[in-house]
Formats: sequence, C-alpha cells, structure tokens
Amino acid sequence: MIYIESKENNLFKETKKLKERKNRNKSNKYIIEGFRLVKEAFKAKIEIDCLIITKDAGEKLEEYLSDYINEDIKIYEMSDVLFKELISTEKPQGIVAVISMDLKPLREEGCFYLLCDKLQDPGNLGTVIRTAHAAGVQGIILTKGTVDIYNEKTIRSTMGSLFYIPIHYDDENLSLVKNLKEQGFNLVVTSLDTNKDFFEEDLRGKVILTVGNEGNGVSDEVLELADTKVKIPMPGNAESLNVAIATSVIIYEKVRQDRL
Amino acid sequence: MIYIESKENNLFKETKKLKERKNRNKSNKYIIEGFRLVKEAFKAKIEIDCLIITKDAGEKLEEYLSDYINEDIKIYEMSDVLFKELISTEKPQGIVAVISMDLKPLREEGCFYLLCDKLQDPGNLGTVIRTAHAAGVQGIILTKGTVDIYNEKTIRSTMGSLFYIPIHYDDENLSLVKNLKEQGFNLVVTSLDTNKDFFEEDLRGKVILTVGNEGNGVSDEVLELADTKVKIPMPGNAESLNVAIATSVIIYEKVRQDRL
Repeated sequence: MIYIESKENNLFKETKKLKERKNRNKSNKYIIEGFRLVKEAFKAKIEIDCLIITKDAGEKLEEYLSDYINEDIKIYEMSDVLFKELISTEKPQGIVAVISMDLKPLREEGCFYLLCDKLQDPGNLGTVIRTAHAAGVQGIILTKGTVDIYNEKTIRSTMGSLFYIPIHYDDENLSLVKNLKEQGFNLVVTSLDTNKDFFEEDLRGKVILTVGNEGNGVSDEVLELADTKVKIPMPGNAESLNVAIATSVIIYEKVRQDRL
Repeated sequence: MIYIESKENNLFKETKKLKERKNRNKSNKYIIEGFRLVKEAFKAKIEIDCLIITKDAGEKLEEYLSDYINEDIKIYEMSDVLFKELISTEKPQGIVAVISMDLKPLREEGCFYLLCDKLQDPGNLGTVIRTAHAAGVQGIILTKGTVDIYNEKTIRSTMGSLFYIPIHYDDENLSLVKNLKEQGFNLVVTSLDTNKDFFEEDLRGKVILTVGNEGNGVSDEVLELADTKVKIPMPGNAESLNVAIATSVIIYEKVRQDRL
C-alpha cells in the first residue's frame, strides 16, 4: 500500500481541493467520509476511484468492508496529519472515498418528484433526500441556488440515500419542470396564501412536490408555475416548521393517498 | 450598566457552569443564546434572570428587543473574551439570557402527548419539540436517559417552542405513562414488529405517541406498555428515517385524523 505523508503529494492536494464546491464541479469528483457511508457506496455499487485511510483505520477496514475490498480497489494510506486536512468532521473515522460524480438520469416513467428550490441548509437537503428515497420518490430536481448535494454535511445527512435516488439540475428557465407539467404533472407548493391543508388536496398520481428556501419559502418563478398550493396547519400556533419536517409530512401524505 | 471583564467575577463563573447539565440541574437555571431566542423568551413571557451582552451587541439590543427591555431587566456587559467562554456557538451574536427553569405542568384535559424515550440527539429532540408545538401536542413526557432539553443545541432547534409546551419527566417506573393509560390513553409506538402502517390505525382521541432512541428504537419497558404498534412504510427501500422525521409524519397523521 502506498503511504502518503508529503504535503506535495498529488493525490493529497487534489483530494483536499474537493472540500470546495467549485473544485468538485471542475474535477467531477467528491469525497465521502466514514465507514458507514463508504459501505453504503459499495452496497449501492457506486464506482469508487480510491480509498484513503489512516494507519489506525486499517483494522476496521477488514472488519467493515472485507466483503467489498478486492484487488481492483485502490487504497492509499495517509499520515494522520494530512488526513485531517481532507475533512471537517470533528472525530474522523480515518477513511474517505473519492468518487466520480455519476448522476442517474430521471426515469421516464416516474410519477413523484421532489423539487428543491433554493434550499440552503446542507443538513436539510440531506434529510429531505433521505426521506424521499425511503418514501419511493423517483427523483430530485434542484433549482439554481440550492446548496450542493456533494457538500459533506448533505452527504452525511442522506445516510447513503444519495447513492440511490436520481438527481437532476434544472436550468434557470425551469425547463424540466415545465416539461413535466406538460406531461400532466401537478406542481405542488406550500404557501401561506391558501386555506387548503395539505391533506385536503388530492396528491395522487403525477406530482412534483416543492421544498422552498428556509427563510423565504418557494421562489416567485416556481410559485408562478404552481398548480396546487397547500399549507400545513399549525393548531399549536408555532411560527413555522423545519423545512425538512414540512416536506416529509407532505411526502407521506402522498404515500398514504396513493394507497387509497 | 455593569461591565464584567474579570474571570473571577461571580456571574461569569456561575453562568459558565450552566454549560453542563449537572450544574443546570443543581442551580435550576439554563442559558439561551442569540437575539431570536431571547426575543421568543420575552414574547412567551418567560421570566429572565438577566441578560449578558457584548459591547457590539448593544445596538442590536435596541433594534430587536426595545419592546421588551425595561428597568426591571438586569443587563450586564461582558468582554468578548469572557463572553466566548459562556457558549459553544461558532458565530455568537453577543447575547445570552440566564433563565430559571419553570416547567409547566401537563394540563389535565390534554389528549395528545409525546413520549420521548431515551432520545439521544439534541437536535432531534429540539426538532421534535418544535413540530409537537406546531401541531398542538399538549405536552412532552421524557423518560430517564433522554438528552437534556436545556442542552444548547436542543434549545436552538426548538426555535422557541420550548417556552410554550409543557414538559414532564417521568420516573423510572413510567408512573405518568401508566396513569395516563388508565385514563384511556392509547400508547402508540413505532415498531418493525407489525404490518400496520401508521395511517391504517385509528389515532384519534387520547394518544401518547412514542419517539424512541435513534439507534435502538423504543425501549423494552415502553414496548411492554404499548397499545398500538405502527410502522412507516418505506417503498423506496431505504434502511430508516431520521427519528424526528418519523415522529413528525405520525404527529400530522393524527392531526389529519382528528379533523375527520
């Protein structure tokens, strides 16, 4: 196994750059951290460019990943000092995987998509992706201005769901959303400007459910295209719900209605 | 305004101690950080022992809290160096409030309670409390072993809902839960050991909904008392949902059913 301890090492320099979105986009690569996520990536048959581990992580590698490790997997060992520079986690587990982005295209036959519209918090995006995957949502559409799905915190919050669900970036004209609407999709947004509770509307069949920005809600461009506006009742008079919670509640109302 | 810059100052020493749960319990006090939360506390008419601000925060105090500040509110100014020791936030806003714990008793006439059973993540507990408040849940019951509601992160995630919702600590024998069951409450738990989806069960009327531990689910002691077991379907084949998400989805199914 090649051991890396020089700051001048190319793999170290290139991998460290992946902490920034612009470098991820340039090289089309991202990193994931921790045994659990790396195992999920293997399970999902994601192609892994290489693994980088610390000395201490060697034993755990055997324990957790022996089913997946073979000669084709490149593994590098790195000094603790350098390794710490690759990631931001407080208690790193000593393993990262470098992965080439490989977005799955949206399936043609889908009938339930989630539109993330300028969502800002990486944890919220990750949690929304995790719930969407669990509930059988067939694809995530992201508008410009949404936080990066390859952000460390986003990836961690998806708990591996990122590896399964098709993701699509829409353009500034929302061409994909418009196209889906023409195919009969019902674009659902949450809004304060309606009296309809989410469980009073028909959410069956082809639906795009929108998740808005944490502070400002759904953008004007998307609101203009909306077919159905719903609100989540708050009998307890709180001011608002967390956006990932609000989205998940509506996602599962659709799951319920689709069984009717 | 009294200015504090010595590490030997009593208020500084006592307030810093409140970062630890055991000290909070001993003194029956806790701290909240940031203008938004302090404003929420004033709005909720929570009695505030004192405010501690940095020099820079003085102007913002006028801007955000002028409706609430009067001669009765004790305000201390503290040097930036000391202030930073009071809290763990990365970008502190320069204001904390010291508050005496004053748990509201559960209301007798309630019909929807949430039982947090050894929940461990502070952010999850806070998010659950926020959703519960919004949905009109009338009280939170905590079992031994649940993370502290006065943990900094918990308080932040509640977004102020902590100030409104009655909270009760149950004893090791779950006396309160048993007592509520005798009054006709339906103790609902999520479990893998059932075929019933949460929306197939009748959740109307008197319900205690249980939130289990992130890794281990609902404890055996609570499971034994359960009247209704439900699961959340995951047609997308993810392994699990975030516990705050799972809880919120069921909370809102009850809100829906109660309207039927």
